[in-house]
Amino acid sequence: MKLQQLIRENHLGLLFQQGNFGLEKESQRVDINGNIVTTPHPVVFGNRSYHPYIQTDFAESQLELITPPNTKLEDSFRWLSAIHEVVLRSLPEEEYLFPLSMPAGLPPEGQIQEAQFDNPDDVQYRKHLSAQYGKYKQMVSGIHYNFQLSPEFIEKAFALQNEYHELKSFQNALYMKLANNFLRYQWILLYLLAATPTVESQYFGKKQPLAEGQLVRSLRSSPYGYVNSDDVIVNHDSLESYVASLEEHVAQGRLIAEKEFYSNVRLRGGKKARDLLEKGIQYAEFRLFDLNPFAPYGIELKDAKFIHTFLLGMLWLEETSGQKEVEIGKQKLYQVALEDPRTETAFQAEGETILNHLLTMLEELGASQELKDVVQEKLTQLTDPTQTLNGRLIQAIEEFGSYKALGAKLAQDYKAQAFERFYALSAFDNMELSTQALFFDLIQQGIKIELLDENDQFLALKFGDHLEYVKNGNMTSHDQYISPLIMENKVVTKKVLAKAGFNVPKSVEFTRLEEAVAHYPLFEGKAVVIKPKSTNYGLGITIFQQGVNNREDFAKAIEIAFREDKEVMVEDYLVGTEYRFFVLGNKTLAVLLRVPANVIGDGISTVKELVERKNDHPLRGDGSRTPLKKIALGEIEQLQLKEQGLSINSVPAKDQLVQLRANSNISTGGDSIDMTDQMHESYKQLAVGIAHAMGAKVCGVDLIIQDLNQPAEPTLNSWGVIEANFNPMMMMHIFPYQGKSRRLTKAVINMLFPEITN
Amino acid sequence: MKLQQLIRENHLGLLFQQGNFGLEKESQRVDINGNIVTTPHPVVFGNRSYHPYIQTDFAESQLELITPPNTKLEDSFRWLSAIHEVVLRSLPEEEYLFPLSMPAGLPPEGQIQEAQFDNPDDVQYRKHLSAQYGKYKQMVSGIHYNFQLSPEFIEKAFALQNEYHELKSFQNALYMKLANNFLRYQWILLYLLAATPTVESQYFGKKQPLAEGQLVRSLRSSPYGYVNSDDVIVNHDSLESYVASLEEHVAQGRLIAEKEFYSNVRLRGGKKARDLLEKGIQYAEFRLFDLNPFAPYGIELKDAKFIHTFLLGMLWLEETSGQKEVEIGKQKLYQVALEDPRTETAFQAEGETILNHLLTMLEELGASQELKDVVQEKLTQLTDPTQTLNGRLIQAIEEFGSYKALGAKLAQDYKAQAFERFYALSAFDNMELSTQALFFDLIQQGIKIELLDENDQFLALKFGDHLEYVKNGNMTSHDQYISPLIMENKVVTKKVLAKAGFNVPKSVEFTRLEEAVAHYPLFEGKAVVIKPKSTNYGLGITIFQQGVNNREDFAKAIEIAFREDKEVMVEDYLVGTEYRFFVLGNKTLAVLLRVPANVIGDGISTVKELVERKNDHPLRGDGSRTPLKKIALGEIEQLQLKEQGLSINSVPAKDQLVQLRANSNISTGGDSIDMTDQMHESYKQLAVGIAHAMGAKVCGVDLIIQDLNQPAEPTLNSWGVIEANFNPMMMMHIFPYQGKSRRLTKAVINMLFPEITN
Repeated sequence: MKLQQLIRENHLGLLFQQGNFGLEKESQRVDINGNIVTTPHPVVFGNRSYHPYIQTDFAESQLELITPPNTKLEDSFRWLSAIHEVVLRSLPEEEYLFPLSMPAGLPPEGQIQEAQFDNPDDVQYRKHLSAQYGKYKQMVSGIHYNFQLSPEFIEKAFALQNEYHELKSFQNALYMKLANNFLRYQWILLYLLAATPTVESQYFGKKQPLAEGQLVRSLRSSPYGYVNSDDVIVNHDSLESYVASLEEHVAQGRLIAEKEFYSNVRLRGGKKARDLLEKGIQYAEFRLFDLNPFAPYGIELKDAKFIHTFLLGMLWLEETSGQKEVEIGKQKLYQVALEDPRTETAFQAEGETILNHLLTMLEELGASQELKDVVQEKLTQLTDPTQTLNGRLIQAIEEFGSYKALGAKLAQDYKAQAFERFYALSAFDNMELSTQALFFDLIQQGIKIELLDENDQFLALKFGDHLEYVKNGNMTSHDQYISPLIMENKVVTKKVLAKAGFNVPKSVEFTRLEEAVAHYPLFEGKAVVIKPKSTNYGLGITIFQQGVNNREDFAKAIEIAFREDKEVMVEDYLVGTEYRFFVLGNKTLAVLLRVPANVIGDGISTVKELVERKNDHPLRGDGSRTPLKKIALGEIEQLQLKEQGLSINSVPAKDQLVQLRANSNISTGGDSIDMTDQMHESYKQLAVGIAHAMGAKVCGVDLIIQDLNQPAEPTLNSWGVIEANFNPMMMMHIFPYQGKSRRLTKAVINMLFPEITN
Repeated sequence: MKLQQLIRENHLGLLFQQGNFGLEKESQRVDINGNIVTTPHPVVFGNRSYHPYIQTDFAESQLELITPPNTKLEDSFRWLSAIHEVVLRSLPEEEYLFPLSMPAGLPPEGQIQEAQFDNPDDVQYRKHLSAQYGKYKQMVSGIHYNFQLSPEFIEKAFALQNEYHELKSFQNALYMKLANNFLRYQWILLYLLAATPTVESQYFGKKQPLAEGQLVRSLRSSPYGYVNSDDVIVNHDSLESYVASLEEHVAQGRLIAEKEFYSNVRLRGGKKARDLLEKGIQYAEFRLFDLNPFAPYGIELKDAKFIHTFLLGMLWLEETSGQKEVEIGKQKLYQVALEDPRTETAFQAEGETILNHLLTMLEELGASQELKDVVQEKLTQLTDPTQTLNGRLIQAIEEFGSYKALGAKLAQDYKAQAFERFYALSAFDNMELSTQALFFDLIQQGIKIELLDENDQFLALKFGDHLEYVKNGNMTSHDQYISPLIMENKVVTKKVLAKAGFNVPKSVEFTRLEEAVAHYPLFEGKAVVIKPKSTNYGLGITIFQQGVNNREDFAKAIEIAFREDKEVMVEDYLVGTEYRFFVLGNKTLAVLLRVPANVIGDGISTVKELVERKNDHPLRGDGSRTPLKKIALGEIEQLQLKEQGLSINSVPAKDQLVQLRANSNISTGGDSIDMTDQMHESYKQLAVGIAHAMGAKVCGVDLIIQDLNQPAEPTLNSWGVIEANFNPMMMMHIFPYQGKSRRLTKAVINMLFPEITN
């Protein structure tokens, strides 16, 4: 297989570097001191019989977090971050994730429960493992790295070679080369990335294999980690011999199942090894990696990229290892694993050869300088073991006294970090907060998510065979197309609602300025709102709360409105308080009061100081990456202060309410106050009816209400509907400034997937 | 009732001039010579048991066209125009609408069939009329003018007066004043607007009331028109006496039903007169008006406005007429009706008083100059009868020899006019052609239409209690909200369709120019399309049909695409022909081939001449008010010619195809060719499946097809889907340049109202 030449001659370097990447990360749930807990898997993580992201590995306490495959490693890391944030924020308050591979604070074996799957076979298999290897050994955690070569690369390369006549055989040969060469040279990765130099004495029990205080590079990958018995040798000379020998071990009872074969590479693509011969190897899983405790999610992106480079390097080698070389590789791995991590390795020269081989390859592929620098760094580590991960780890353990103490501290730090912006999913912060909240709930509940278009907040969701699409967190197949079109047009909205018998303030529409002004007599003395027909954000709106009393003021307001739209409405002004009702299906799920930006005096602080203090609230920020916006002190706010006889340096009296804005928008620093429980039921029913009249399933309805304690009456003096919104900001209700949070995203999921009942 | 003072002092002049207006216009279906036909009411006009717009009056041949009420007379006229265009274009080829009130070419009485309603009572009533008055008298046609005062005006005026203690009494008093004063002075309108000076001798049969050649002002409103017998006197002194006396006539058998009372004013608001006492009079119907044969729809807007002014004038009068004055009015009406239309009237002085009264009123109301001018014109006509409608009519009859001949000629002209822009509804030309086509079908089928927002193409449709909303002709409640959102985003569309297993050209998306260019090796040698992610109209698109073979060209194309969007797609180019499939529900209803602007040489004409000739096609115009666009001869077209070695002055050979554009858009002069019957069924099924995959009910699907005669194969070599459109232009299919018209709007109606089966 002359892959180097083929790639070089056909400019396939870029395609060769593409692929799909998935990560699986195990870790133990522990208490504040790093002791493994014996509580059951939290029910909030839904059902493990289908959960694609949050699973348990061997033990009930051992979480396994799984990213979907991505074409970019960066994206797999974003997923890993998101799943971690979901898990860390959903864990019981007193639980943490232990960041090291070797378990600490192990409970007595009898208290360790095997993971409680629905499927009895899964539980039975774990019981077998407990009996065969002991429970403690199964409690070790690590990272599994899934890699698929670009199928397009394989197709193209196949078409350009003439050694193989079948695509499948070519593909299998590629993956066998990758696997075998990896097994031959994996010791290099171990030297560089291992992080299990020690373990608590109770782990080994009576038979302590290590001397007191002895450190090794990797207990996990050493013969003291979990390894098969010596008689389990699987032949790697060909895929055929691999499958046959593996099946033989199972048939002879040396393995209870194929999956009991612990190799640092697993060939993937079928339920059974034999399927690979039929379907071809689809990807490979590399299981060598210890958790990096200094990376909040167990592995650093830089190292993941290095591993990718290393894997490509295994293919770039001229030779393909056979069983003999695989055996050599295994012996080297064991030897390196048990070397003193503070010393250089015995195989340094071979390591340098391979890393230099990687550099040559990167050069020929036209790869980025970033990748070359990483390899250079690893080269340095080959001669200086203190710079390896182990080097740093040993020092940190010394500082903290034990790896358990270090792990407990880091676990607390990482959990605290996950709560810093508790309303967001940090890695998907380019999306709207409502979509992030939905995303959070979907991960938690175990619904498969595909990001169709992040900038457009477009998701495809799948549960079993049930497929749904969602945009902006709540635009779905459940709404009719005509509904948003109705709501988009204020005039049409009003006509539709009036037809259906709801209280709608009367309005007249004009398309010409002169015509509108000529109609002044119709409005003289009336309280009216003058507004453009279709713009938003309050632009061009004038309110004559006390009635319009001269033609000039009226004409001016009309002119301002016409600046924003070709059509202008003159609408009766309704007296009362505006509330936002969030309707989903037959229910009003949340009611919100929006209050204009304000501060309340304490008799000591200036307005400026009061504003600064209020802006410190964790929900306040730029308003797009935070649920609430910081209050500004610009021209409009200062004008508003002036009207109250104040400036930013005034000191308002204790309990004095200082208005900083006339409008109540959250986007100008307003407060959001949940009023769901306070609102009289009759208005909630009205909001549902209003949504239905427009054919809407999900809808934000703005009602002006005289008195939220009194039942609704059928006149505009009691209430009126002024607007409906087909893209209601769920975030306002999920993270209000005051009052109860309403987790609307969960209701959206229930609407889309009523079959999920956990 | 001091209405003048009340309006004046409270600035209610504008409100007083507002109201609701509806028109009903009867006319006979006739043959090319003006003879009344004996064919049944055309089935294409749907079912008369509910049809709101197209009804029959007395006879099967007598159409009654009804506008809905409108706040502006202009809008009622637009409806009248639209209904006429529907009727004239739907009539059998050899039938016309007779434009004069008096019938001509009357068939023998036995051949005149009373209108065949479903309800036997309706038929029975007409049989009674035939027996009581003779069929011929019932064949006279006219205009009914419905007028409602602004309810807001009535409420305001009521609140400001203290004569009446109940709104209903005040409202009834207003309408009684209007009715009675109208009956008192209606002769003035008759003098000005009458148009029935003569009738064929056969109309009267043996008892000819007029001397040979005698002309009158209005046979229809004279004692020789249809009038009740002399003993039917209904007392107008109060609404109570009115109701009581009317009921008495029915009880005594002098009238078979209340509706047999022929008054020029009918008080409306209930099924029975007694209901008016209960509910209040809601509006009044004025039935005085002869058809104006010079107005294509029987009445001129100017005259309708004058009638409105006259009606307001009747309220503006200080006095309210009672029964005595109503009787005087009736006598005057009869006298004026039988006056020689070429002479002045006996009551000229009274006429001048009233018209001057109108002028004073208009002045005080601050009304428009236009209205005052109309009244001035009518004042002139009072002294010069030749300027009245009758004056003009008599002259025209003389020219044509008979009113029948005149009527036949005008009927032909009006029908021809209605076909001039047969693809449009002239009065609603501000809307898109597809919406106009839907509007046409809705009127024809008798579905109630409310124009919620014309500029937004937003309609509310009602059939019985079934309400539907439509935007842009085919956006309805039947589509899911998520579907257009999917289609709006090309990347998402492709992902969704690929997931569902459809052939989609592969593409890669980029957000940064350098990144895209760095990926050049992936595309080297491939035929690709480079395009911005979301813009339309072909902007920023580069096609490398023969494969992209150097990095500079590739980089340039990427740069051009980035000018239009923040995201750019590089997509595999599909070879084949693009077809547009229009899918509705489970069916592909139409398939269209769009061909780039072109002409075909004749060996004699220049390109310029060929283009001019092609542009003469009735469907070609500006492309927004016409189904097709005229071919331009701008820079792009001339460049295209140059590439073929031609200029606009070249003379192409006979049958030579000359391309004027590379793109096939209709909006740049392309041809549309219906291919529905030619297309292999398998592609039609694919298009349906594609629409379903996106949850769409109505959808335009663009497929690239290798060979429309061969069944679809599952590879991109056979076909591929490149786009889907949620707002497919139905007009392209309804009026193609070549091939069969597909009336898609009817399918939309069937989808919305499956319960209609006629």
